[in-house]
Amino acid sequence: MTADRHAERLARAMTAIGEAGLRGLLVTPGATLGYLTGYAPMPLERLTVLILAAGRHPVMIVPMLERPSALASPAGERIEIAGWTDAQDPYVMTAGFLGASDNRETAGAFAISDDAWASHVLGLERAAASIELVPQGAALPLIRAVKDPEELERLRAAAHGADAAFGEIVRLSFAGRRELDVAGDLTRLLRDHGHELVDFTIVGSGPNSASPHHDSGDRTIIPGDAVVMDFGGVAGGYYSDITRTVFVGEPSVEQRRVYNVVRDAQQAAFEAIRPGVACSDVDRAARAVIEEAGFGERFIHRTGHGIGIELHEPPYIVQGNATPLEPGMTFSDEPGIYLPDRFGVRIEDQVEVTSEGAGRLNEASRELTVVT
Amino acid sequence: MTADRHAERLARAMTAIGEAGLRGLLVTPGATLGYLTGYAPMPLERLTVLILAAGRHPVMIVPMLERPSALASPAGERIEIAGWTDAQDPYVMTAGFLGASDNRETAGAFAISDDAWASHVLGLERAAASIELVPQGAALPLIRAVKDPEELERLRAAAHGADAAFGEIVRLSFAGRRELDVAGDLTRLLRDHGHELVDFTIVGSGPNSASPHHDSGDRTIIPGDAVVMDFGGVAGGYYSDITRTVFVGEPSVEQRRVYNVVRDAQQAAFEAIRPGVACSDVDRAARAVIEEAGFGERFIHRTGHGIGIELHEPPYIVQGNATPLEPGMTFSDEPGIYLPDRFGVRIEDQVEVTSEGAGRLNEASRELTVVT
Repeated sequence: MTADRHAERLARAMTAIGEAGLRGLLVTPGATLGYLTGYAPMPLERLTVLILAAGRHPVMIVPMLERPSALASPAGERIEIAGWTDAQDPYVMTAGFLGASDNRETAGAFAISDDAWASHVLGLERAAASIELVPQGAALPLIRAVKDPEELERLRAAAHGADAAFGEIVRLSFAGRRELDVAGDLTRLLRDHGHELVDFTIVGSGPNSASPHHDSGDRTIIPGDAVVMDFGGVAGGYYSDITRTVFVGEPSVEQRRVYNVVRDAQQAAFEAIRPGVACSDVDRAARAVIEEAGFGERFIHRTGHGIGIELHEPPYIVQGNATPLEPGMTFSDEPGIYLPDRFGVRIEDQVEVTSEGAGRLNEASRELTVVT
Repeated sequence: MTADRHAERLARAMTAIGEAGLRGLLVTPGATLGYLTGYAPMPLERLTVLILAAGRHPVMIVPMLERPSALASPAGERIEIAGWTDAQDPYVMTAGFLGASDNRETAGAFAISDDAWASHVLGLERAAASIELVPQGAALPLIRAVKDPEELERLRAAAHGADAAFGEIVRLSFAGRRELDVAGDLTRLLRDHGHELVDFTIVGSGPNSASPHHDSGDRTIIPGDAVVMDFGGVAGGYYSDITRTVFVGEPSVEQRRVYNVVRDAQQAAFEAIRPGVACSDVDRAARAVIEEAGFGERFIHRTGHGIGIELHEPPYIVQGNATPLEPGMTFSDEPGIYLPDRFGVRIEDQVEVTSEGAGRLNEASRELTVVT
């Protein structure tokens, strides 16, 4: 990651702050701090915050003991680093920087990282009662949403690693093994295929497949089961996240029907994607297919979430989100149908918005797959 | 973890809420939610919150798609689980439960998890403007602070794993290898010694040892270096965290002097620990030794942090913290001296408060150690 890239990203963030009518942006440790500055400390209880305020040079407040690390990071090249000691109130110190804007006429709120800690939010509200805080996800959601070519390449490589893991898992036997055994295999396969972190390996079998975020457990998989596998992690710094539903032996007529409805819904959402279309319209496209088939009440989540250096990030493909799609945005397309106590089906690919429409980052088969 | 234990912990939390004069406690996904309920979802952007309010049965708000998982967890046995859909505002829904207390006369604030997301805090403040929120760490810090015998046993086992890793690393050669190579060895050794997660392996050599939270890097270690190694992770669900400083070849007179001051300060803090003593007094005991030796300005962090199912948790051993120690509390004793651009020394053990005084969880040698 070159210094130029961080400078470009910081400049773009400053522009976005102005365009959004904000006074500034407060960034606590996490994905966006690393993205903008190259500084990636552990998110712990002591306040670290990057202050991007209209009309002033960026400054980062850090615990004094972290100051040498911050200075040694790429952030040290272009950002003022101010350390606080245990004898100081870091919120009062931060408030001083917020009030000391060179451009006092700028009205508006400060956005703050969605995952900033409550203790920090409440501390800042106490120390700077006149400052209005709003979540970055609401006020300035798209800072990392459009990926550059290198990011797209990394997301594609991560997706292909997950595809390869799926290609291998379906050659193993399912019946007679526990969900946890299959989850263990997925962990191994993701590592084999370039993942430095395996973040989740959901294996929901039989009635458990009707729980979208089931914790893989001791249940032994049996013939007749639907098995939802939702797994992913980090490869080359970017997330993978794929879901496929397979059947142990020939599926029933109903299982086959539900599978086909979900597959059609996933395809309908995919075909709705192009620049300028609202996120909510993509959600609607998937939902319409499922409602038409009579399963509307059984599709109990949004159609998708953005993906990048975080597993879930804007844009969210959900009703009510009018954000227009732009080329380079990446997100999941993952409708599902869940019949409580019986079975569920979900199919998930990561996709990118292109200048013409959309492309899939995942290439694993979406055809109905029967395992042994 | 038995259901009885969660019931006991929930009951204890309810008592603490009353004693602290709070209206209730809002717990978002993280260590405390798992501790109180046995439910441990990934902390993601959709609101999940356990509401413990004086005078009403516990209720947990979860995204509808997580409801089956929550019901299947130990939380489902004793906590009402309310799901919200993408068409609902989860903050308005939560506000309804906060206002609907059976005991409207109870005054006071709601505490909220220190690491609850800013987006949730700001959403709740918007939906329930009359509700005062305060950080749990300030209002109700000690919910997990006193460990039971099984927890102490797990912390001791984790500490001994880290001790064993230190015992082996000092037998390897340091000079001519990079910090990252030594860090890699520490990762392997922690895994060899029972750690399911290796969370951090700080190796700061030579001038880098003066940066308390140095990111292990490409620097090649040379004779004459001080090397600070601060490493730990999770074994059996509980954290280890140890720091030792070693010297590559015979230390200089100054290095030896600084080492001895830090060792004496660490011992002085240890000897200050007993039930009833304030956290700040333990910090003071270490700081007095370092100030006396003329290095007061070079001890740039607090003396310690609590440890358990989180790496950093209350009680914090820091100036201004009047919390009296109780038997069963566990925390780090880790003074340091950092001479910028030259070298640093830190020595860290985990300790437990006993009925008589204190015990060390770590048993690795604190004698000055010379490596090759």
